[in-house]
Amino acid sequence: MTTEDPAHPVTGLDDVVHQRVRLGILTITHEARRVEFGYLRTQLQLTAGNLSQHLTVLETAGLVDVEKGYEGKRGRTWITLTSAGDKALAEEIGRLKQLIARVETTGTQE
Amino acid sequence: MTTEDPAHPVTGLDDVVHQRVRLGILTITHEARRVEFGYLRTQLQLTAGNLSQHLTVLETAGLVDVEKGYEGKRGRTWITLTSAGDKALAEEIGRLKQLIARVETTGTQE
Repeated sequence: MTTEDPAHPVTGLDDVVHQRVRLGILTITHEARRVEFGYLRTQLQLTAGNLSQHLTVLETAGLVDVEKGYEGKRGRTWITLTSAGDKALAEEIGRLKQLIARVETTGTQE
Repeated sequence: MTTEDPAHPVTGLDDVVHQRVRLGILTITHEARRVEFGYLRTQLQLTAGNLSQHLTVLETAGLVDVEKGYEGKRGRTWITLTSAGDKALAEEIGRLKQLIARVETTGTQE
């Protein structure tokens, strides 16, 4: 058994959460708890199709709830962070902090 | 012109650098400056093919140098972080810190 060379912190990152757009969705729903589809699109500068794909990945993983409804006559889609999503985001943030600490304690020699 | 709703910090992240495995490669080469292919494979728990694909993306973007040589009779591949790679990693770390600060100042209300 060796403890000298444990796997690198990035091996503990979850691609479902770490992927750039999905990390954005989780961060924004964490901030606002319940956000409208159009708001996410604007904030993340995405096409509707691209945003939908990432929401499906997160919904399938149980990290967000997607709920369709109406605001007046207009159809609206609302996205909410689940408690599993909140936990997954917290884990990602914790691992990113480890990674940052590791990078910053090994500065370049230039 | 509105300054109320600027695009979210994740829109500034670069997928070439942010992607989990590539972030790992950049971090490790930042730590060690010059690393052997097999070491990266072990640290990142990847197949050779998967690691090669990600190295190609980074090499094409000018963020790492890949150099083939020998150690005794055995062929070896060495990977070095370029100064552009070092800069790109620093930018990623800076943006991640912004993101983390944003998440942590908006705690959940539970």
